[in-house]
Amino acid sequence: MNQKRIADYGIRIGTMPKGPLNKITDVPGVTVGHCTVDTAEHKTGVTVILPAQDNLFQNKLPAACFVWNGFGKTAGLPQIEELGTIETPIALTNTLNVGKVHDALVEYMVQCCEKDNVEMKSLNPIVGECNDSGLNNILKRAVNEKEVFSAIESACADFEEGDVGAGKGTICHGLKGGIGSASRQIELDGKTYTLGVLVQSNYGKLADLIVNHDPIGERILKEQELTDVKVDKGSIMMVVATDLPVSDRQLRRIIKRCSVGLARLGSYVGHGSGEIMIGFSTAYRISHTSEQDVIPTAQMHEGKLDLAFRAAAECCEEAVLNSMVCAHAVTGYKGDTRHSLSEYLK
Amino acid sequence: MNQKRIADYGIRIGTMPKGPLNKITDVPGVTVGHCTVDTAEHKTGVTVILPAQDNLFQNKLPAACFVWNGFGKTAGLPQIEELGTIETPIALTNTLNVGKVHDALVEYMVQCCEKDNVEMKSLNPIVGECNDSGLNNILKRAVNEKEVFSAIESACADFEEGDVGAGKGTICHGLKGGIGSASRQIELDGKTYTLGVLVQSNYGKLADLIVNHDPIGERILKEQELTDVKVDKGSIMMVVATDLPVSDRQLRRIIKRCSVGLARLGSYVGHGSGEIMIGFSTAYRISHTSEQDVIPTAQMHEGKLDLAFRAAAECCEEAVLNSMVCAHAVTGYKGDTRHSLSEYLK
Amino acid sequence: MNQKRIADYGIRIGTMPKGPLNKITDVPGVTVGHCTVDTAEHKTGVTVILPAQDNLFQNKLPAACFVWNGFGKTAGLPQIEELGTIETPIALTNTLNVGKVHDALVEYMVQCCEKDNVEMKSLNPIVGECNDSGLNNILKRAVNEKEVFSAIESACADFEEGDVGAGKGTICHGLKGGIGSASRQIELDGKTYTLGVLVQSNYGKLADLIVNHDPIGERILKEQELTDVKVDKGSIMMVVATDLPVSDRQLRRIIKRCSVGLARLGSYVGHGSGEIMIGFSTAYRISHTSEQDVIPTAQMHEGKLDLAFRAAAECCEEAVLNSMVCAHAVTGYKGDTRHSLSEYLK
Amino acid sequence: MNQKRIADYGIRIGTMPKGPLNKITDVPGVTVGHCTVDTAEHKTGVTVILPAQDNLFQNKLPAACFVWNGFGKTAGLPQIEELGTIETPIALTNTLNVGKVHDALVEYMVQCCEKDNVEMKSLNPIVGECNDSGLNNILKRAVNEKEVFSAIESACADFEEGDVGAGKGTICHGLKGGIGSASRQIELDGKTYTLGVLVQSNYGKLADLIVNHDPIGERILKEQELTDVKVDKGSIMMVVATDLPVSDRQLRRIIKRCSVGLARLGSYVGHGSGEIMIGFSTAYRISHTSEQDVIPTAQMHEGKLDLAFRAAAECCEEAVLNSMVCAHAVTGYKGDTRHSLSEYLK
Repeated sequence: MNQKRIADYGIRIGTMPKGPLNKITDVPGVTVGHCTVDTAEHKTGVTVILPAQDNLFQNKLPAACFVWNGFGKTAGLPQIEELGTIETPIALTNTLNVGKVHDALVEYMVQCCEKDNVEMKSLNPIVGECNDSGLNNILKRAVNEKEVFSAIESACADFEEGDVGAGKGTICHGLKGGIGSASRQIELDGKTYTLGVLVQSNYGKLADLIVNHDPIGERILKEQELTDVKVDKGSIMMVVATDLPVSDRQLRRIIKRCSVGLARLGSYVGHGSGEIMIGFSTAYRISHTSEQDVIPTAQMHEGKLDLAFRAAAECCEEAVLNSMVCAHAVTGYKGDTRHSLSEYLK
Repeated sequence: MNQKRIADYGIRIGTMPKGPLNKITDVPGVTVGHCTVDTAEHKTGVTVILPAQDNLFQNKLPAACFVWNGFGKTAGLPQIEELGTIETPIALTNTLNVGKVHDALVEYMVQCCEKDNVEMKSLNPIVGECNDSGLNNILKRAVNEKEVFSAIESACADFEEGDVGAGKGTICHGLKGGIGSASRQIELDGKTYTLGVLVQSNYGKLADLIVNHDPIGERILKEQELTDVKVDKGSIMMVVATDLPVSDRQLRRIIKRCSVGLARLGSYVGHGSGEIMIGFSTAYRISHTSEQDVIPTAQMHEGKLDLAFRAAAECCEEAVLNSMVCAHAVTGYKGDTRHSLSEYLK
Repeated sequence: MNQKRIADYGIRIGTMPKGPLNKITDVPGVTVGHCTVDTAEHKTGVTVILPAQDNLFQNKLPAACFVWNGFGKTAGLPQIEELGTIETPIALTNTLNVGKVHDALVEYMVQCCEKDNVEMKSLNPIVGECNDSGLNNILKRAVNEKEVFSAIESACADFEEGDVGAGKGTICHGLKGGIGSASRQIELDGKTYTLGVLVQSNYGKLADLIVNHDPIGERILKEQELTDVKVDKGSIMMVVATDLPVSDRQLRRIIKRCSVGLARLGSYVGHGSGEIMIGFSTAYRISHTSEQDVIPTAQMHEGKLDLAFRAAAECCEEAVLNSMVCAHAVTGYKGDTRHSLSEYLK
Repeated sequence: MNQKRIADYGIRIGTMPKGPLNKITDVPGVTVGHCTVDTAEHKTGVTVILPAQDNLFQNKLPAACFVWNGFGKTAGLPQIEELGTIETPIALTNTLNVGKVHDALVEYMVQCCEKDNVEMKSLNPIVGECNDSGLNNILKRAVNEKEVFSAIESACADFEEGDVGAGKGTICHGLKGGIGSASRQIELDGKTYTLGVLVQSNYGKLADLIVNHDPIGERILKEQELTDVKVDKGSIMMVVATDLPVSDRQLRRIIKRCSVGLARLGSYVGHGSGEIMIGFSTAYRISHTSEQDVIPTAQMHEGKLDLAFRAAAECCEEAVLNSMVCAHAVTGYKGDTRHSLSEYLK
């Protein structure tokens, strides 16, 4: 990928070392795919995070979620909380498309399990969403099974950021939002681990935007005579991947710290803006069918979690900025244009 | 409706007075509709609870949910928890059909809002589910938009119970489960209020079944040489309606008490059995668009909640029994027959 | 101990095998001690559960809590939820004595840590409570440091049940409540594990009491011309110990099932009755100071938890009954006498 | 009070209008009192927030809490969550003193209720804490009943900030922390309401400190050759008062936004740092004994909450800065000196 990202503007978020791609896919085994729906009427799409390349239903991953602001429609959270695992890819889309994408994930896993000869009768698809109705005619759910399968097929490590997939029609701090990502590295017992974040950014007012301690939003608003959004409406989905050996409780603590990154960017976590974190670890698998009653697992010494907390905050902050600077200006179906943050950075 | 219900067997659950129909629809304004899919391959369907007869998106209702056991896929819970309201009918279906039914509820509300000239860009459909894969070929999601619309159109006060709608293919305590309901009345400040419960029953082992202090399950198992389910798998959805003037926090306290009824019936809330309560009050409406910043509401004096707690427990216990005795024996797509509890009561 | 317990009346709760003492102390390493304050003015005391015999602050245990009804004053829960561990003994006392017992646990652990040369600057004492103001002059907090230290010193495996320690002044289902316990055994991978429960019972109406499917409460009420409590007020503390290798999330799922036992006994979980579960596992220790960043742990295969769920329900039900039949009649400081259930069983 | 506060350095946090004192006591009826223990061995104390001037047990206030990071020992939270009310003043102190202060609040309310002829048998004291063991010999709990009563007696509107009361020994971002406060005004339906925050600040690393977009901490660290704290350990208690007519659920949403202010200051919400928010509204009272079964209440239109969210964030950020600049340098019992932020601002 050859996109100009926030670091390319000389802006360094935080202090921790980054992974090679500085994306969520620096966590081994994780890939991301998009399918974008870009027509006169639709600026929308779907983005799928594949946490592993084999059958997730058969070999689940430890997982956690945290609902910072529940004004959102994400499907699949109660089972993550109860069982501490995920068993499907995570799909992001627009608000009213959750049902169709949910059904597409079911179909995808039915096919996978038939292929792999795994008996599957129950499934908990994870579908997150942001409301892109500012640019997209959301009432006509444009994302169908075809788009979900296409996103899964296109999944790779070096995925595109900005106005693609589920980020095609989103608005962030009054500018164009989208999909963005970042990663950080952590040493434990002499071994290097990675934590990465992917966001679908769709929240906030321009007046509130802060870029690395610079309250640039107010300045842009004045200089550019742009129209700010009236209220902090929308949502942000934050997906956290890591290969750190953590329990589901520890994961939950880690992903909550994404909110620190959000606040640094100027978010007040507005009423109308659903903010939801979902995280998983690839450190161990939990077999659907096990011959053993007791399963060996591992967790980090709690006192060592601080680096993971900091990594989540740094990644989330940088991921949002990447989503914004990688996005091109997009004009919606009603003629409203949302500009790219890249237009206002030197 | 002319079905033989548990009270018709001389079994009296609890001590509180019942509403006229002894169904959730005794709460004024509430109706329930079914659409059943009954083919060689499918024993499934959808049941829709309409909490009010006008546009719920425009005039929301105070609501609450409680996840007793989160091994379930119910959609829409995070927003209920955050905002304390519901804005769509509540649909129940089979596990893998949540996505399609979710999308159908979106379509239904899009059409309602267009008709009512209400601007709607975001929606939180509530879709609950039980796993009917014992009798139904669940992998082929048989419930589509047509079935959901049909269930909504057929909604009425005196609805059918047993093996109908979302209860067509469910199994409860090793016997045939289904849809059941009950209601209780409460006096406050000299006025009569109603609390009603509707369940989709699909949990439990036969050996554990207790009917009004009688451990009948063990006896049936021995005498009838039936095959019990191996583990307490499945789910139970419990929907609570009331016209009591309660806050969302109070509603949450009330609906939790459904679990008392479950335990009385012999449930151990097995690992594989998602148990989810959703409740709403019709006592006041919360306008989507309000001209006032401050809205007058009301709540019960906390010390008076005890009667509502007892009502929830009694209703849930009786609703499950109604779901079982009203159900006919059903033979599934693989030839397995689940008998009706009514066969074993005098 | 030579007390007549519920099993000695020929009443068998559930179906699972019991541990040798049929008490929480069947879990290796767990002991329980009481100190009773029995004066004209006071019927109260303190009961302490020691989860291990060495320094718990230095070597913590995985733990969980669940607040079924939060009308209670138990101290220490937020940290259990966040960190999934306990680091002190668990003390039970009367409602207004929580502060003094809290401070006594601090003093006890300060002394332990000084003796063991462990640096300790922060501590999360766990103090549960029931309201014994019906029999005890609760306003004068009669339990002091001396009583707490005495309870700890007297801790043993074969502890007394009934109207002792924190159970001296409690009322359960209108009769005399108290401290009770029970245990069950579970086989995993060919090894025998134990789960035990200790309760401080102080809830419920007599009219609602059910003993093993027999609604005996109504009968006693009529025959004995007793005065029932007016409302289901009070509380019940439920402490669960196990040596099962479970994660804190799994422990939380297990201890929630105590509520099944409560409902079987006739509880409606009344508004005024705080119901709180606290559980710990002795399967592995979590060192306060660790040289390793990553700690090996273990958890049960989720599908095998059902037996632990059933054990928690059975133990809770039997523990409450033991607390009631082992209790003698007690006359309170205002002359009110609460009789023992043992008076009404043959 | 004649203290130099952060605004006096020309630093303006946020954009909303402030109350007359710019303290939590701008909410009518709220007062705050301190008692400081300042000896060679002890740098600690107690700070009490009185939410109303009459008997809080008899006339409770709607309340909420949110545990951002539960590595803390605050007492009283489960009942706030369950019942949505507070019934005692809120006391802040050091970690190991929670028990003694808890008991002192009980004694205070026992005396109040005797005086007011209110029957009280159960009480839920709210006691928050930070760990001041860096400067204070915390093992000897220096705060007793006398100090709590003294703090309550000294309560007033124009209270002192900085190294007083429960803030005497706290450390914030490696500098001296303490007690700080701020307030904001909100217009609804043409009426002016107030939201105020009081913090006990005791968290964070100096390297992370940001003052109004200025990463001043790194600079101070380099220029002053100070010793930073090694890890983000400690805690922050955040108490929110308002006269906005909100439900307990809405209050919970509001107080969560304090975390935005924390993140703006540079907090990563470290593992070892308990962050707990407690909020109450004075808009209506909930009588302990009511003759009515149904109580009229009010709540804000949800869409209008955004201003309250922003107010909570701004107040928390400014309150922490006030706690830091109002504090004098303090030398602890082991000789460690923590400097005041005021030394490094022009």
